Amino acid sequence: MKHPFFRNYGPFKIVDLVDDLKLNNIENVSDDLVHDIRDLQTADKDHLTFFHSKKYHLQAHKTKASYCITLQNLAHFLPKECIPICVDNVLLIISQITSKFYPDATNDDFDNTVKKIEELKFNNKIKHGHNVLVGENVKIGKNCSIGHNSIIEKNVKIGSDCSIGSNVIIRNTIIENNVAILDGCIIGKKGFGFFPDKQKNLRYPHIGIVLIGENSEIGCGSTIDRGSMSNTTIGKNTYLDNQIHVAHNNKIGDNCIIAGQVGFAGSSTLGNNVMIGGQAGISGHLKIGNNVQIGGGSGVIKNISDNSKVMGYPSKDLRQFLKDNK
Amino acid sequence: MKHPFFRNYGPFKIVDLVDDLKLNNIENVSDDLVHDIRDLQTADKDHLTFFHSKKYHLQAHKTKASYCITLQNLAHFLPKECIPICVDNVLLIISQITSKFYPDATNDDFDNTVKKIEELKFNNKIKHGHNVLVGENVKIGKNCSIGHNSIIEKNVKIGSDCSIGSNVIIRNTIIENNVAILDGCIIGKKGFGFFPDKQKNLRYPHIGIVLIGENSEIGCGSTIDRGSMSNTTIGKNTYLDNQIHVAHNNKIGDNCIIAGQVGFAGSSTLGNNVMIGGQAGISGHLKIGNNVQIGGGSGVIKNISDNSKVMGYPSKDLRQFLKDNK
Amino acid sequence: MKHPFFRNYGPFKIVDLVDDLKLNNIENVSDDLVHDIRDLQTADKDHLTFFHSKKYHLQAHKTKASYCITLQNLAHFLPKECIPICVDNVLLIISQITSKFYPDATNDDFDNTVKKIEELKFNNKIKHGHNVLVGENVKIGKNCSIGHNSIIEKNVKIGSDCSIGSNVIIRNTIIENNVAILDGCIIGKKGFGFFPDKQKNLRYPHIGIVLIGENSEIGCGSTIDRGSMSNTTIGKNTYLDNQIHVAHNNKIGDNCIIAGQVGFAGSSTLGNNVMIGGQAGISGHLKIGNNVQIGGGSGVIKNISDNSKVMGYPSKDLRQFLKDNK
Repeated sequence: MKHPFFRNYGPFKIVDLVDDLKLNNIENVSDDLVHDIRDLQTADKDHLTFFHSKKYHLQAHKTKASYCITLQNLAHFLPKECIPICVDNVLLIISQITSKFYPDATNDDFDNTVKKIEELKFNNKIKHGHNVLVGENVKIGKNCSIGHNSIIEKNVKIGSDCSIGSNVIIRNTIIENNVAILDGCIIGKKGFGFFPDKQKNLRYPHIGIVLIGENSEIGCGSTIDRGSMSNTTIGKNTYLDNQIHVAHNNKIGDNCIIAGQVGFAGSSTLGNNVMIGGQAGISGHLKIGNNVQIGGGSGVIKNISDNSKVMGYPSKDLRQFLKDNK
Repeated sequence: MKHPFFRNYGPFKIVDLVDDLKLNNIENVSDDLVHDIRDLQTADKDHLTFFHSKKYHLQAHKTKASYCITLQNLAHFLPKECIPICVDNVLLIISQITSKFYPDATNDDFDNTVKKIEELKFNNKIKHGHNVLVGENVKIGKNCSIGHNSIIEKNVKIGSDCSIGSNVIIRNTIIENNVAILDGCIIGKKGFGFFPDKQKNLRYPHIGIVLIGENSEIGCGSTIDRGSMSNTTIGKNTYLDNQIHVAHNNKIGDNCIIAGQVGFAGSSTLGNNVMIGGQAGISGHLKIGNNVQIGGGSGVIKNISDNSKVMGYPSKDLRQFLKDNK
Repeated sequence: MKHPFFRNYGPFKIVDLVDDLKLNNIENVSDDLVHDIRDLQTADKDHLTFFHSKKYHLQAHKTKASYCITLQNLAHFLPKECIPICVDNVLLIISQITSKFYPDATNDDFDNTVKKIEELKFNNKIKHGHNVLVGENVKIGKNCSIGHNSIIEKNVKIGSDCSIGSNVIIRNTIIENNVAILDGCIIGKKGFGFFPDKQKNLRYPHIGIVLIGENSEIGCGSTIDRGSMSNTTIGKNTYLDNQIHVAHNNKIGDNCIIAGQVGFAGSSTLGNNVMIGGQAGISGHLKIGNNVQIGGGSGVIKNISDNSKVMGYPSKDLRQFLKDNK
């Protein structure tokens, strides 16, 4: 699948990629072309993938990629058709290679391709406010409204019957039908991901996008960052209140109700019908099941199974929390 | 009292309201006209009211309304002059009837009635920045300033000597004299209230407004939502720091000091002289007394009596909190 | 040292300052001119200083100031060359005197000196968006970009290679080279400081500025307030995520990593290489050492020594927190 927004500057010869990174101790590389960089599951025969933690060994074992950036002690999990390229810091190398394939995903300066909406031709009539700016590669469906001073930067697809408020900024985002994005939201900016370095941190590219399902609503002043290697997604008919922060790679399910000032640290998955009270925080890399209820102010640092009700910091069973705090 | 901002599309015949909602099992309705929909206390003879929870039975007993949407098992609390209309889901029906009286209170798309402030005639000279937009039914007092890119949408009344910052958005709000609204605030938007439904949540109308008392200050990037059936109010000489969220129907008293990133879940009442430390959260439907001090980071989930000092999550007596955490 | 931004309206005769404040019981004052108001350490011979808490007695003992606003019971700590002016409320009096020296530091109304960036002459070519406004006394280095609708108010110095996003507001701030300020930030506004008064709080002047070190990044929708008597500083190569609030007078070190929705109450000092998880809160007037790690959601209310790892509300040793919450 072609990336919907970022231009892929590949293919590159694997030998050139390895040379560029000055990985001198690498053997077995050839003139083979790699056409894209993908995760273990979605990689295909002509792709490069990466494998940096034993917890992904099942996926590694089944990958179809021809090459894989990995660690010496993980290489044996790969199928024999996949040639390991062993390095010390997998994510750093992957960041550098991703930047080569998708250099446009690293720069999040303001979009200087935008024009005033009045200067652009849209097939659909758009009800819009004053000073609305729209960038390249933007599609907008029927019966949409866009408020004053809003900036639809490049790489945005908006469905039909959507209401975008005022002072909103969106880029690298797909919005389905009948979605409301309220005033002051900032959606689709790169996530808070980088390699710390004492002199100057190294930003890594964010090639994921933001996906917002139909009938959803995003409250005033919320921020939703796009993903790094995967997407950030908000399900269908999911309502977010004001001042919520959704970091990169979170996957939020359908029919969720999330109250004001909640924060998601990144790369967590929420099921459907999840309710979260105000100011709760969800740590990174967690799995929250379906029909879960999380009390206001909770700090969630562990997975939560389906149908659970939790509260507290750290969160625990709701009845236990109420009993402990009588 | 006439609604200050939203047009009342009534009166309607009670029989028509009932027919429209396909409430087939309703009897006793007539051709009587109802002129407005009000809560139990403010309803008058030609009004419709609603009563959905036993905790309001005292008010129900004294209501002057002629008709009341209620539950079968609550109807007997009503005075005999008030005819009960018994339904299964009072709030859902009320939401639908309110939308009929006040259809303009449901739509929170951007205000397309605004004009550049230079194109409007105000009796008072207003010191304003670039790109200031002002909607219909806006009054602004003497000696006010409005910063760049700010949008005073329809239905706003601003007193004298007010300072509105830049990038501010206001609608459906009354601001008294000498109030400062700092940069990036969003005030008067509909609250986070709706009826959850698996396919498509049903938004309910917010016919309340925001009232901000004289000499108050609202910090940068704060959001204050307007009320659903009642108003959201900020008292006199009350100071809010940056990034605060005040949800619908909260009533905050006079001389309060509320530090950064505090959140109010909705429908709570705060007394006067209340001090709240940063990042504290106040759950919904609580009563916080006068002269209360709430420590930073607290999660308040119970009522607090006058002159108390509390801290913790959930909050408890401050001395107890300090003792428990030595 | 001259103030970089605010005009000093002094010198004033000390006798006149005292007369203006109606401090009738003050003796020993003369026609001497005082040229500035400074803290105990930076004050020089022709300056006025202040001393309101015994914990600063060492600095008081060494001050070079000729006059000092202080309390009766602290006056004896001052060197004999420094004449005490004893009052009941040191900070209130200092606030009033500071307003006399720096009246421009009290008014935070929008900057009406700004012009469209196209109308100004800069030595360096600036890549800028639509509707960018720039105030007086602004310097911008080489190779900078400024996004749409951003307002660089008066008194801002931006280094080279900086990327300012869209909808950003900055004033009274010095930004070093290679800094990224993401969309929707509000930087350099007065802090949340005032003297509570039952009828009308008294705002006090904020003559400090904001300093942001090179290679740093400030996430979307963050607010950084300028200092009152000292500056608010962000170190070099320090990254702040989205929706962070840094109140007045905080000093954050180099190479820090601070996740989303963290809040700093004011006047705290952070060392270098500090990592803070999402939604943590740092109380006021604390000292956080170097290489400290603070878990997400923590509430820090005590000093933290170098190399500590803490978590919890209130925060404690990380291992203890995990053990207590097994």
